[in-house]
Amino acid sequence: MSKLMTKVLFIVAGLTLMTILACKPADKDLSTYGEDRAEIENLQARYMFALDFGDLDTFVSTFTEDGTLDIIGMKWQGRENIKEGLGGMMPPAGEENPEAQEASEATEEKPLYRATGRHNISNIVLKIDGDKAVGRAYWFHMGNGNPDRKAALDSYGYYEDEMKKVNGQWLFSKRRIYNEQMAEWIGSDKNPCW
Amino acid sequence: MSKLMTKVLFIVAGLTLMTILACKPADKDLSTYGEDRAEIENLQARYMFALDFGDLDTFVSTFTEDGTLDIIGMKWQGRENIKEGLGGMMPPAGEENPEAQEASEATEEKPLYRATGRHNISNIVLKIDGDKAVGRAYWFHMGNGNPDRKAALDSYGYYEDEMKKVNGQWLFSKRRIYNEQMAEWIGSDKNPCW
Amino acid sequence: MSKLMTKVLFIVAGLTLMTILACKPADKDLSTYGEDRAEIENLQARYMFALDFGDLDTFVSTFTEDGTLDIIGMKWQGRENIKEGLGGMMPPAGEENPEAQEASEATEEKPLYRATGRHNISNIVLKIDGDKAVGRAYWFHMGNGNPDRKAALDSYGYYEDEMKKVNGQWLFSKRRIYNEQMAEWIGSDKNPCW
Repeated sequence: MSKLMTKVLFIVAGLTLMTILACKPADKDLSTYGEDRAEIENLQARYMFALDFGDLDTFVSTFTEDGTLDIIGMKWQGRENIKEGLGGMMPPAGEENPEAQEASEATEEKPLYRATGRHNISNIVLKIDGDKAVGRAYWFHMGNGNPDRKAALDSYGYYEDEMKKVNGQWLFSKRRIYNEQMAEWIGSDKNPCW
Repeated sequence: MSKLMTKVLFIVAGLTLMTILACKPADKDLSTYGEDRAEIENLQARYMFALDFGDLDTFVSTFTEDGTLDIIGMKWQGRENIKEGLGGMMPPAGEENPEAQEASEATEEKPLYRATGRHNISNIVLKIDGDKAVGRAYWFHMGNGNPDRKAALDSYGYYEDEMKKVNGQWLFSKRRIYNEQMAEWIGSDKNPCW
Repeated sequence: MSKLMTKVLFIVAGLTLMTILACKPADKDLSTYGEDRAEIENLQARYMFALDFGDLDTFVSTFTEDGTLDIIGMKWQGRENIKEGLGGMMPPAGEENPEAQEASEATEEKPLYRATGRHNISNIVLKIDGDKAVGRAYWFHMGNGNPDRKAALDSYGYYEDEMKKVNGQWLFSKRRIYNEQMAEWIGSDKNPCW
């Protein structure tokens, strides 16, 4: 083989290798801001469904094994502790507001049905660095736990979140919840975001 | 050409081909969770604008040709049927609540202007598999169809969605709407999500 | 070198080059709908935190240097002008509603704490073309500037946005805000989206 030939072949082979390496991020497993944000948004939404429908097993599965849920007034670390702590505070599924449930039984003109409460997340800000992420977001809650089953906004606040990617899955390692309807649980008066 | 030479060339050509194939997903058409979710979120939002502004043509274009809109109390399949069925239920554009419109004409201290209603989507959960997707999300509605044009939350519920990618575009193949302000239209008391 | 040989080498080299160019979008800097949308959603959310927490420097940093904020009744171009104009309209941080603040000082049964106001964005629709984007979205505002610090929805409307990618960062080049609680500031009765 001529020397020139060999050189050319090495260059072509080298370029090919570089290309293969450069293309690596095109894999489905690629980690980009958009991909990670999409997964985290999905996590944040699944958390809400699990919370509002009293599905505690799914709820705690959105946290890392040693994840922390901190609602300022109370704080639990680890899935079992979160399940026990939060579970004790939640009304049984379908009984968002037992008193209103009582009250509405009295009404005859409207058929009775269970009251519900719904948490919503908005304004999600995420800073992602490898397999760690920091988040800020607003939340607000509405419910119809009144005798008329009338939809009503009743509280809001914001989240300070830390997330980790464990075995390819994003999970909360820490969620801190500020609630602006409780003097003791309101958050900062400075921008908690960036 | 020497045999060695030929071999080397085949290897280089083979690697190049593999690289080209491996890089395919890097195209703009690449399908990743993040890309598909972004397109579907956009679809979900466009649906809302079209609905609230009475733009029925755009609204039905968010469904597949044989898509189904199921509001529990009623159900329509196919774009034309959805258009006719939903169109019959919608107030003419700019007349969200004709009665309130009437009422507000009586007020002299505040200039009259049309009332509006706005549907919002939140907590979007999406499971995507190739050109099919399943979704869950919350919705809530606010309006100002009262004599003071005061913003008021009036209803909420959740969606169960099925989507299909048709010619590169995500569309609803089925949307089922639960409404927690109607005894007959409320959804499950079990977590409808995962 | 044989002519055939040379030809084959040129073909292989050509394919390699094409592959390298085709793979370019696989870089972390790749611009796809999903990546750009993720960055823009983050921008839209950061804007809200900065606005509600009175962080004017961060707020104006979400605009391009010569960006425009148009709230129909008023309009400012350029970061300094936006800062001055909007700053003059904002209550000092932690005094969302000075009157309610006064009023609540009178109440003895509930400890006094600062009132807050929170803007939320939903239904984000984005059309992205290279380093320019056009957006539509809903907004709604809630606050607790009343003596009971009760969460209440108080206004809503929609945005018409233009965004630019400057040095790799998406920024607002123009935001126009429609407010459906003000006769003069309400938007179109036709679908402003697509």
